[in-house]
Amino acid sequence: MRDLSRDTRLLSLNTATIREQWGLGEAIEGCVRHGIGGIAPWRDQLHVLGVTEAVKRISDEGLRVSSLCRGGLFTVDDHLNLDDNRRAVDEATALGAECLVLVVGGLMAGSRDLPEARRRVAEGIAKLLDHARVQGMRLAIEPLHPMYAADRGCVNTLREALDLCDVLGAGVGVAIDTYHVWWDADLERQIRRAGQAGRIFAYHVCDWLVPTEDLLTDRGMPGDGIIDLRRVRGAVEAAGYNGCCEIEIFSAKNWWRRDPDEVLRICVERFQSVV
Amino acid sequence: MRDLSRDTRLLSLNTATIREQWGLGEAIEGCVRHGIGGIAPWRDQLHVLGVTEAVKRISDEGLRVSSLCRGGLFTVDDHLNLDDNRRAVDEATALGAECLVLVVGGLMAGSRDLPEARRRVAEGIAKLLDHARVQGMRLAIEPLHPMYAADRGCVNTLREALDLCDVLGAGVGVAIDTYHVWWDADLERQIRRAGQAGRIFAYHVCDWLVPTEDLLTDRGMPGDGIIDLRRVRGAVEAAGYNGCCEIEIFSAKNWWRRDPDEVLRICVERFQSVV
Repeated sequence: MRDLSRDTRLLSLNTATIREQWGLGEAIEGCVRHGIGGIAPWRDQLHVLGVTEAVKRISDEGLRVSSLCRGGLFTVDDHLNLDDNRRAVDEATALGAECLVLVVGGLMAGSRDLPEARRRVAEGIAKLLDHARVQGMRLAIEPLHPMYAADRGCVNTLREALDLCDVLGAGVGVAIDTYHVWWDADLERQIRRAGQAGRIFAYHVCDWLVPTEDLLTDRGMPGDGIIDLRRVRGAVEAAGYNGCCEIEIFSAKNWWRRDPDEVLRICVERFQSVV
Repeated sequence: MRDLSRDTRLLSLNTATIREQWGLGEAIEGCVRHGIGGIAPWRDQLHVLGVTEAVKRISDEGLRVSSLCRGGLFTVDDHLNLDDNRRAVDEATALGAECLVLVVGGLMAGSRDLPEARRRVAEGIAKLLDHARVQGMRLAIEPLHPMYAADRGCVNTLREALDLCDVLGAGVGVAIDTYHVWWDADLERQIRRAGQAGRIFAYHVCDWLVPTEDLLTDRGMPGDGIIDLRRVRGAVEAAGYNGCCEIEIFSAKNWWRRDPDEVLRICVERFQSVV
């Protein structure tokens, strides 16, 4: 395993972590101030700053863009959300992002047909890949925790995501987020499989709090929860991953209310001590 | 599939559904009043009424006991919670229950070691089986939704539960609860596997609400959520299950606040129309 105890360059800040306090411009400056090597912007904030301006600032500061969040949501309309998804690929390409993260979407409105939702997701990724391959942009399917299967993402295990990748071919892989996959008894085997196929495009770190009081916005800073983070990173790195560790926390009652410089300082500490 | 549209005998009331309104004695009377054929008591309420008295009343009314809830929690102490678990087996036997449901327990206090928790669970069930086999009481492992892996149950898919059963041998099977397993892409295959092994001991029905506002107590009446209940029951019955459909709903803000006779009336309606 890599020794991160003095490193900050392999840490990437997913801007969701301080999204209530800072826009993208401030997040870029914050990363620079704290020596954080990478950033993963969300598209809504990217649009506020403007893609051209964001590209310039990120490039000027020498930050890696570990991913762009996010494309996907293939089930929200009858056109697989493809127009917006193609724009997301273009934006990721402009930013020089290492991948575009896909949160694939849940059930269609008014539907209970989960297999059909999954078929549409497969079709959507296949169609988006045509565009992404031309641009040379990698697509990273992010399996979401099963509690989001209905309304956010119906690919819920690493195994399912890799089964999809097997069908889809080159240019598509996975974003592994500890928060979504930690519970899975099959996790380490699937991480090995992902590594052997060269499909680990991103690694996100977030902890599971006990108790968890909200399904979406009560996620934990690494070290505050019960996930054996070192075990997961060990498996991911043993499988060949050598990219950034991206910290992404949704936390309405805690981290989104704090001084964002304090949040970044603690992210760095935890990255060096528990990630 | 069985036609339940005029039936009430194959419906079983899990008493958690009206636990805030009624004790076990009232629940027994309620089942009789509504023609509900089965009941699944919880042990805390059983102890309040007294096992002998409960056995007498349930027997006098001719109710099936589709299961006793619950044994398990093998990770709460260093003795695999075995004394209490053996008492649970004895109580289930006294009631003539069709199985004892096992909610296996989560991480040990202060631990992040999920594989170790799972090893203890396997050891605990193996030891409890020695006692259960003598009594002729079947143990039903209930895979819990992955959002409970840390603090309630670390067996989180039907596949994991069946892998455990394969190791453990005769006398142990599964309780399949739609709320916990509906999201699983591997569900139908594992249901077939469970049926082929003769391991489907109980079938629980509960719906997943969108949005879900609490991880534990915001579960839905069948028909109010997004689970394709007919698809799951079809698979379970195609796999050979012909027992009760047990309705079990934890609902702090809705069903636990209603007139319990109204709750039972609606359970019967939904059992006949959407389960």
